[in-house]
Amino acid sequence: MTHVPLPRGFRAAGTYAGIKKPGRGFDLGVLIADEAYPAAAVFTQNALLGAHVHLCREHLAKNGGLVRAIVVNSGCANCATGQQGIDNARRTAEAVATRLGCPPEQVLPISTGAIGAHLPMDKILAALPDLIDEALQDPGGSEGVMDFTRAIMTTDTFPKLESATFEARGGEGRVTGIAKGAGMIHPNMATMLGFLTTDAELPASAVEVLRQTVDRTFHRVTVDGDTSPNDTVVLWASGLRAAVDEELVDGALLDTASRLCKQIAADGEGATRLVTVQVRGAASEADASHVGRTIATSPLTKTAVAGRDPNWGRILSAAGRAGVPIDVAKARVWIGSTTLYEDGRPFPDREPEASRHLAEEREVTLGVDLGVGEEGADVWTCDLTADYVRINADYRT
Amino acid sequence: MTHVPLPRGFRAAGTYAGIKKPGRGFDLGVLIADEAYPAAAVFTQNALLGAHVHLCREHLAKNGGLVRAIVVNSGCANCATGQQGIDNARRTAEAVATRLGCPPEQVLPISTGAIGAHLPMDKILAALPDLIDEALQDPGGSEGVMDFTRAIMTTDTFPKLESATFEARGGEGRVTGIAKGAGMIHPNMATMLGFLTTDAELPASAVEVLRQTVDRTFHRVTVDGDTSPNDTVVLWASGLRAAVDEELVDGALLDTASRLCKQIAADGEGATRLVTVQVRGAASEADASHVGRTIATSPLTKTAVAGRDPNWGRILSAAGRAGVPIDVAKARVWIGSTTLYEDGRPFPDREPEASRHLAEEREVTLGVDLGVGEEGADVWTCDLTADYVRINADYRT
Repeated sequence: MTHVPLPRGFRAAGTYAGIKKPGRGFDLGVLIADEAYPAAAVFTQNALLGAHVHLCREHLAKNGGLVRAIVVNSGCANCATGQQGIDNARRTAEAVATRLGCPPEQVLPISTGAIGAHLPMDKILAALPDLIDEALQDPGGSEGVMDFTRAIMTTDTFPKLESATFEARGGEGRVTGIAKGAGMIHPNMATMLGFLTTDAELPASAVEVLRQTVDRTFHRVTVDGDTSPNDTVVLWASGLRAAVDEELVDGALLDTASRLCKQIAADGEGATRLVTVQVRGAASEADASHVGRTIATSPLTKTAVAGRDPNWGRILSAAGRAGVPIDVAKARVWIGSTTLYEDGRPFPDREPEASRHLAEEREVTLGVDLGVGEEGADVWTCDLTADYVRINADYRT
Repeated sequence: MTHVPLPRGFRAAGTYAGIKKPGRGFDLGVLIADEAYPAAAVFTQNALLGAHVHLCREHLAKNGGLVRAIVVNSGCANCATGQQGIDNARRTAEAVATRLGCPPEQVLPISTGAIGAHLPMDKILAALPDLIDEALQDPGGSEGVMDFTRAIMTTDTFPKLESATFEARGGEGRVTGIAKGAGMIHPNMATMLGFLTTDAELPASAVEVLRQTVDRTFHRVTVDGDTSPNDTVVLWASGLRAAVDEELVDGALLDTASRLCKQIAADGEGATRLVTVQVRGAASEADASHVGRTIATSPLTKTAVAGRDPNWGRILSAAGRAGVPIDVAKARVWIGSTTLYEDGRPFPDREPEASRHLAEEREVTLGVDLGVGEEGADVWTCDLTADYVRINADYRT
């Protein structure tokens, strides 16, 4: 999150275009590649789709998976805006493509912000030329990407930017990830955006590598179970560095994406604790991940953490309703490093120790072993506090 | 909830047996039938099961669906208590059976309260004889059933008791329903218990009638999506009255159960609004009910109601992620009687009207038409306030 450069082949910039109210920070950013590089994207599962999801899918179907630029605005989700919304996204992409001299389908336009309002096209079209010129002059250091990161924030309280390096032939390779998070629940907000850039030659197609990375990271961060209409994660690889071992690339991607996910969870509105839910002893990794998400979306476990209450019963009960195999007699539940339930028996005398973990650490752990297999998964979330309800109840007033 | 008698053939009593701390109200109750009458029960889907669920299933498999008595304690869920928990439930049933002179399998013992503690058997066995004698002398009027209703409460702020009558040959028939609710989220609490008694001759088997009733009522009340290990709903019919029309019995059951569900939702911890989610235009009733539950468990919609914010985008987005067919272009969203989104367009000028509905009514309506069919369902929930988080975070401290 400090001074993080972009991987070789990428440049970035951000600016204030007047989409947000003045004083709310940047609202328009671009990521530009030196050439059109392989990219893949995953989008929200919500049936209500932001206009950019329609257009990005169309472009990715036409451009052979090669992307030259990504343009992102915050302050307006361009969602529930009908055909005009799609037309506006298209005009944004065309404006970028014209300036760069590339086909429009090599540009992915992405929006985040409030639902139900149209993009202020005059302001966007007026700001784009200077923004693109600035990005083209960006040396790919930490300044341009930080401006871009700030430009995609909505109610995030801090910019989310992470990087990892890997050993490559001809020098160090890099993954740099940028995300905007969720606050706790973000009502009419396009909840989550993630951009993973790398100079690695990918070990498989961008689509495959992205799917694998997202399944183990972005699909395992949950704030309230409400997917937004605009959720988008992109992987984009210049291929300028060949890793000495393909697994190093996977590792750097997972590492970067995991750290972004933790930042998203930690930035939950009103949150005071980053919670890692560890599920072990599952029949499959999919089961483990599903149980983890069930625990991590349970208001019951989240309020317990807020109250520093080592309430193992809430964890076991949430695991029990997840609908996957569990052997309650062999199950184990822990908080921090303290086992509170094992072999069908609770250990109430250990609760003060677990309570201290919740009270004293900012990053806390809730764990359950399902007692039926060898697979596991970690899921990230945050606690649920009275402040979070207050913030969201008063969201538009 | 006022003065409600039991149907013919049933008697009840409640007492303080010392399971709860003194001053917390009654904690042991019995419902007794004049003879063993047909009964059916549905239990939680949670894999973590209270001991009573194991024993009730065993008894219902042995007793040919004929039940003579139900004994309920609050203050202790008898859950995560292993074999000793099942043995204790069995001893409770045997004590009741001995006093009544019936087979033990005609008795259903049910528990609600905190997880992980054993039933105080000495106190329960000491209190049962007088309690049963009292119930046997109960004329079936409003006093005995109210004592029973109070005895099954945990953190409920009011007793939940509803009744409906139907025209029968030889006089009026009756359904009387008793429930204990959920507060908002009830951590180590056996969340929901429901007892539907009637003197009707059932139009089908008790199992079928119960399933049909529960699908349209208890399965449509949601407080936080966390099923508890002890959830139980029982239907019990003396058959002493033959309705002039079978549909009258179904109607009285649905009416009674619906009103109990609304009471459960309205008694959510920290809740200030009873919320009815109306789903229409669905491809099937199951789809409608699923969308309704998705909206009703969304922290997003629940905090909006708490903030009196007519946030139609949250409703549409929750419907969109439910995973059932929806045509966003044909969908309609309303709050109270005000349409806020229709034909792909929002109507922001109508929001003040919808806001007034949320601010001025204690029972509010959120609605969505999915635009793909003719089916519908109502689901009940409550708003999510900062008070509710505070109550649950501090639950055990």
